[in-house]
Amino acid sequence: MLSKNQIKLITSLKQKKHRHQHGLFVVEGLKTINELLQSNLQLHSLYTTGTFNIDAKSEFLISEIELRKISFLKTPNMALAIFYIPESKPIDNSQLVVALDDIRDPGNLGTIIRLCDWFGVKDLVCSKETVDCFNPKVVQATMGSITRVNISYIDLIEFLSNSELTAFGSFMDGNSIYKTKMPNTGVLVMGNEANGISKGVEGLVKQKISIPRFGELQETESLNVATATAILLSEFRRG
Amino acid sequence: MLSKNQIKLITSLKQKKHRHQHGLFVVEGLKTINELLQSNLQLHSLYTTGTFNIDAKSEFLISEIELRKISFLKTPNMALAIFYIPESKPIDNSQLVVALDDIRDPGNLGTIIRLCDWFGVKDLVCSKETVDCFNPKVVQATMGSITRVNISYIDLIEFLSNSELTAFGSFMDGNSIYKTKMPNTGVLVMGNEANGISKGVEGLVKQKISIPRFGELQETESLNVATATAILLSEFRRG
Repeated sequence: MLSKNQIKLITSLKQKKHRHQHGLFVVEGLKTINELLQSNLQLHSLYTTGTFNIDAKSEFLISEIELRKISFLKTPNMALAIFYIPESKPIDNSQLVVALDDIRDPGNLGTIIRLCDWFGVKDLVCSKETVDCFNPKVVQATMGSITRVNISYIDLIEFLSNSELTAFGSFMDGNSIYKTKMPNTGVLVMGNEANGISKGVEGLVKQKISIPRFGELQETESLNVATATAILLSEFRRG
Repeated sequence: MLSKNQIKLITSLKQKKHRHQHGLFVVEGLKTINELLQSNLQLHSLYTTGTFNIDAKSEFLISEIELRKISFLKTPNMALAIFYIPESKPIDNSQLVVALDDIRDPGNLGTIIRLCDWFGVKDLVCSKETVDCFNPKVVQATMGSITRVNISYIDLIEFLSNSELTAFGSFMDGNSIYKTKMPNTGVLVMGNEANGISKGVEGLVKQKISIPRFGELQETESLNVATATAILLSEFRRG
């Protein structure tokens, strides 16, 4: 049986404000919960429609109706867990870092976290306006990768001003990535879905790069930011 | 004022069966409709909350309440248009072709169509089980690119058996794309979200390739199919 306080806590975690106030976030679905349980993350509580037997103290057996009440998903998937938000580790300034300048779409952020994990990028740096990585939609889209990437929310201009790494940014008039030899280290800055990289950040980008377009017509919209990140990270790693 | 028959026709176009029976599909939002109006596609009818003045005969001024009734979107955006489904043109077998083996997610198909447009791939070939490209969610995700890519639904095994182009497919044990020189022509086969390339199609893939993984841990899930398509198309085009 779910108590009123439990329901209140869980549903409050839909909002960023409450997530950071409590230091907690929600994860749903057996597969992702299992991945998180095997990581360094610390479990707060687990609500399942069938016994998991992880830790009787923090595990609650609930009915499907109760799960539907607390789930953020249209089709709840057997379990919902609350984990403690981990503390960000210091940023390793000797590696390839990805920096996000105001990414708003949770699906895009989730895909970018997954890409960082795939391409061995340990540090993802986000402007304070970037969507919260503990937003349930982001967590879902990362497919567990969120446990393997160190994510920091910082003042991007301050970070880039103080970093010794060369900042790369994608611009229409940048040098073709196929003609530029990318280094092993640097900061790859990706801009907002609608407005791209902001003026203040643009001033700190040392190398403007671009993904050439091959379509005959010039009407093609720009590439989606997550797709562009995939292509650029591949270029950095291909050596 | 919307007639009962108009409402019935529009709402029926949510279903693939009815779209192909009528030879019609729905597009929403001013920006995408405008792009389609400038293409070769033929307009069937346009429903707007403000006058567009394209063709008084097929243009209907409706109220916001009426738009909400016929829209497939949560937040309808001023206009809904019906276009005629264009006929597929013959596939150009001398170019780079993308072939999809049972892609199910509308967002993924939409992103792949956009990528084909960006990278100048004129022909996209889909297995019959691949999600319909005139599905409203796909049309929305293509951002107008659907008018510039020739999409054919065919028997993929038959197509690959008869094509003289070399088929490339992404497999875990394939050759690293960073060590393989990609040709200008070929068929890039992308597999289903959950199961990858099917057995029958795998037998027709001549060159198995793979996107290397750089994360230290081996737990990372495979890349999303649209993201993988982005990286692979970039490799084919980088020359």
